[in-house]
Amino acid sequence: MRVLFLGDIVGQPGRKYAAEVLRELLPQVQPDLVIANAENATKGRGLTFNSADELYDAGIEILTMGNHTWDQRQIFDFIDDDERIVRPANYPAGTPGRGYTICKVGQAEVLIVNVMGRTFLSQLDCPFDTVDRILAEHSEIRHVIVDMHAEVTSEKLGMGWAFAGRVSAVLGTHTHVPTADAMILPGGTAYLTDVGMVGPRDGILGMKRDQVLRRMRTQLPTKFEVADGPRQFCAAVLELDDVTGRATSIEQIFCHESLG
Amino acid sequence: MRVLFLGDIVGQPGRKYAAEVLRELLPQVQPDLVIANAENATKGRGLTFNSADELYDAGIEILTMGNHTWDQRQIFDFIDDDERIVRPANYPAGTPGRGYTICKVGQAEVLIVNVMGRTFLSQLDCPFDTVDRILAEHSEIRHVIVDMHAEVTSEKLGMGWAFAGRVSAVLGTHTHVPTADAMILPGGTAYLTDVGMVGPRDGILGMKRDQVLRRMRTQLPTKFEVADGPRQFCAAVLELDDVTGRATSIEQIFCHESLG
Amino acid sequence: MRVLFLGDIVGQPGRKYAAEVLRELLPQVQPDLVIANAENATKGRGLTFNSADELYDAGIEILTMGNHTWDQRQIFDFIDDDERIVRPANYPAGTPGRGYTICKVGQAEVLIVNVMGRTFLSQLDCPFDTVDRILAEHSEIRHVIVDMHAEVTSEKLGMGWAFAGRVSAVLGTHTHVPTADAMILPGGTAYLTDVGMVGPRDGILGMKRDQVLRRMRTQLPTKFEVADGPRQFCAAVLELDDVTGRATSIEQIFCHESLG
Amino acid sequence: MRVLFLGDIVGQPGRKYAAEVLRELLPQVQPDLVIANAENATKGRGLTFNSADELYDAGIEILTMGNHTWDQRQIFDFIDDDERIVRPANYPAGTPGRGYTICKVGQAEVLIVNVMGRTFLSQLDCPFDTVDRILAEHSEIRHVIVDMHAEVTSEKLGMGWAFAGRVSAVLGTHTHVPTADAMILPGGTAYLTDVGMVGPRDGILGMKRDQVLRRMRTQLPTKFEVADGPRQFCAAVLELDDVTGRATSIEQIFCHESLG
Ligand SMILES: [Fe+2]
Ligand SMILES: [Fe+2]
Ligand SMILES: [Fe+2]
Ligand SMILES: [Fe+2]
Ligand SMILES: [Fe+2]
Ligand SMILES: [Fe+2]
Ligand SMILES: [Fe+2]
Ligand SMILES: [Fe+2]
Repeated sequence: MRVLFLGDIVGQPGRKYAAEVLRELLPQVQPDLVIANAENATKGRGLTFNSADELYDAGIEILTMGNHTWDQRQIFDFIDDDERIVRPANYPAGTPGRGYTICKVGQAEVLIVNVMGRTFLSQLDCPFDTVDRILAEHSEIRHVIVDMHAEVTSEKLGMGWAFAGRVSAVLGTHTHVPTADAMILPGGTAYLTDVGMVGPRDGILGMKRDQVLRRMRTQLPTKFEVADGPRQFCAAVLELDDVTGRATSIEQIFCHESLG
Repeated sequence: MRVLFLGDIVGQPGRKYAAEVLRELLPQVQPDLVIANAENATKGRGLTFNSADELYDAGIEILTMGNHTWDQRQIFDFIDDDERIVRPANYPAGTPGRGYTICKVGQAEVLIVNVMGRTFLSQLDCPFDTVDRILAEHSEIRHVIVDMHAEVTSEKLGMGWAFAGRVSAVLGTHTHVPTADAMILPGGTAYLTDVGMVGPRDGILGMKRDQVLRRMRTQLPTKFEVADGPRQFCAAVLELDDVTGRATSIEQIFCHESLG
Repeated sequence: MRVLFLGDIVGQPGRKYAAEVLRELLPQVQPDLVIANAENATKGRGLTFNSADELYDAGIEILTMGNHTWDQRQIFDFIDDDERIVRPANYPAGTPGRGYTICKVGQAEVLIVNVMGRTFLSQLDCPFDTVDRILAEHSEIRHVIVDMHAEVTSEKLGMGWAFAGRVSAVLGTHTHVPTADAMILPGGTAYLTDVGMVGPRDGILGMKRDQVLRRMRTQLPTKFEVADGPRQFCAAVLELDDVTGRATSIEQIFCHESLG
Repeated sequence: MRVLFLGDIVGQPGRKYAAEVLRELLPQVQPDLVIANAENATKGRGLTFNSADELYDAGIEILTMGNHTWDQRQIFDFIDDDERIVRPANYPAGTPGRGYTICKVGQAEVLIVNVMGRTFLSQLDCPFDTVDRILAEHSEIRHVIVDMHAEVTSEKLGMGWAFAGRVSAVLGTHTHVPTADAMILPGGTAYLTDVGMVGPRDGILGMKRDQVLRRMRTQLPTKFEVADGPRQFCAAVLELDDVTGRATSIEQIFCHESLG
């Protein structure tokens, strides 16, 4: 089974570029499942119904989220009904939406989990206990992909090692910068600290860099808007054994428009 | 001018592996200047006199630091006297040691600055103002390399863009995970969000992963020790124009021992 | 010289109640100077021109601020022109407004400084160095009142002890809860960790408690509005020696409406 | 039922002064139950067997803890066996010790809960859900006292309002500064944001102020030791209805030695 996973898609430039790149990439890569982190898909903050629809049209089948899940209030209107959207599973019981979803890929069921780190992020339940619990409830599923949305490398590596040999992949999101540490952990778990971003290349995390720099230098509140200009695409391709669910390879795909 | 920059060297495994790799690498790469981040060189925390010496013997000429600068109290005994050690420049006036150093490479002078981000780290002076000030004091120097030691990608990218065209390179350290975003920013500034780590490959940030995981899962205080096992080496090679100081290329070097 | 200092005024309930209480209190207390923290005076976040005017009409002469200084964008239109408004002095050079102001009280000049702690707050210049610098520039002034706007008790006590005997008073703001530790530090410096709040009594920090509790329990974004219901008033009265500027007493004034 | 609750006891000066003051106070106040926060009782960090014993000898019957619970490693040897020690209940399952204890006072059972805020503190389970769960398991108990050990006033007030009418008292600890907001919330819940500290008066949070100030100003690692000099005592006295458990009054007791 081949899985394509796109890092945080940022704003309209990210959505458009994801669609453009996928148009060429899907026939080449021929993934069995396409997942993307969509927490920034609408204006850099959150996800509207229309943005989700645009991503589905581009060929993405599952959308994971993160700390920006709730930034577009419209999400509360459709997150309960759309089983393709997965928000961090370690929000407290009763939170709208779902923390994992199961989809059929050929004969196999694939469990996709989204979970959030706590260091310098939200005050949520323990992400390790949360994944333990979900795995226990679905011990019959062999193909499990965890999107670990976290700020610090230690917590992401911790998730990778804690579930090495127990899940097919732990892929990090949130920092918008791809890391160069893709590896297969013992037991067949693909690991990558951060997949990176699909969005404007020359902003800062996809936002206009003058605005971000102004805030950093002045500490004054500053409006952040999605940047213009050339765009980049960051993704990972996983090969999972159809029977055991073990990862046999992880590769990164990068492309970007020229700086103009 | 060719500059070789090694990411955070962690503990004895990091020091030994740095020496072993450099023995083969230096004749091949033939750098004009070798810099390494050494904030974790002694037992994963700080830098002793002997560890520094070991790194100099391995061919490293300049040692940059970070939030762990002061973890080995011995550093207070020699940091003032050793011009090859650079601690974050945005500590307040009167802090032992120096925030930048200048070394002669052929005809050129090279200014090496260490500066620390503030987000989720220490309460220091503004890193942007600090670099502005140092550049103003040394406006005659064309070759400037900034080690931006920071937690978050936004602050590192901010440093890169704030000084694009004004320094030769902004290289990030601290997260111990190499990023895959090496690029030349407009004006000839080499940029990389994190160079990565030289140290134990299968720990978490170089420390024993069972200890780190125990702390993450229990929230109890846990002793962290440098991990054993196979080691990795992460570095970047910069090509700088001898006259203008502009970067013309940045490449990453990775190597590691097999998982055994 | 008698100085009356009101803690963080929150929203319309806070402004109205401040005016009502001062109408009775001013004739009794007969302060020579009335200062209030106004960072929450407009809708709980920031300060508009009209809110400031309302506070001046109530008899307040100087308004100090804090981390909410910039929440009402209108402040950028008038903060430069209104010498009665003091925002934290440790914002970087070039920040609109002023970090201290000097006003004439009888024969004496009084220097009022606003400064912000850094722990769990903004990334500003060192508050201690900032006050050092301001004092050095105005060494002829004997009456100095510092509003230390900070989250943690250690940093506020630190400011008190660092300037004990060098300023007339260090009064804390920001937590909206009055502390019971008013004291005169050696050398004649009145100290109080937090003056408390003027605003709705039965909210949480003056905001509707159901909204705040919802956010705490769900971790979902939640709109916070200023609470209704009975109101409280928290202030401190300082007696300063007219000649030396030393504080001879500090007393707290509390009043509130009944719970209804 | 009368309950005496002492705020964070700091180091030997705190232990000794608690004993001295209690010798005079107990005959006067005649409490039915004496509780103290002991997270700093040994050298300002944690609690040894001997320190606990000393506090029991002084007449304290129950010891609550906080973020410093585990600072003295010896605690792991006796916390499981000593039912009088209560550590934050929202540590994960399997944590040594207990998060609440029940003691007999006359005919009544009293449930004492320790719980920790998460904002700027540890990454624990939700304190609100935790208290909900404990109350559900002990719904027959009418007398419930919660020590809410937290950094920020909002989270403490949140705990008070969330359980107003459901517990006898919510008393805050951790900041070492007593607040002046003691009140009876609707439904008969005594509330106080922070009880304050029993320990050296002229340090910063009980530690030597020169050491704390040095760290604040230099950002260098600095050893903190318990301060010398005059000592202070901060406590609260609760009157609870014997039958219903409702609080009918809360009063604070302060005393201190002269500044010498
Ligand atoms: Fe995120
Ligand atoms: Fe993101
Ligand atoms: Fe570091
Ligand atoms: Fe490091
Ligand atoms: Fe504030
Ligand atoms: Fe405030
Ligand atoms: Fe504490
Ligand atoms: Fe404490």
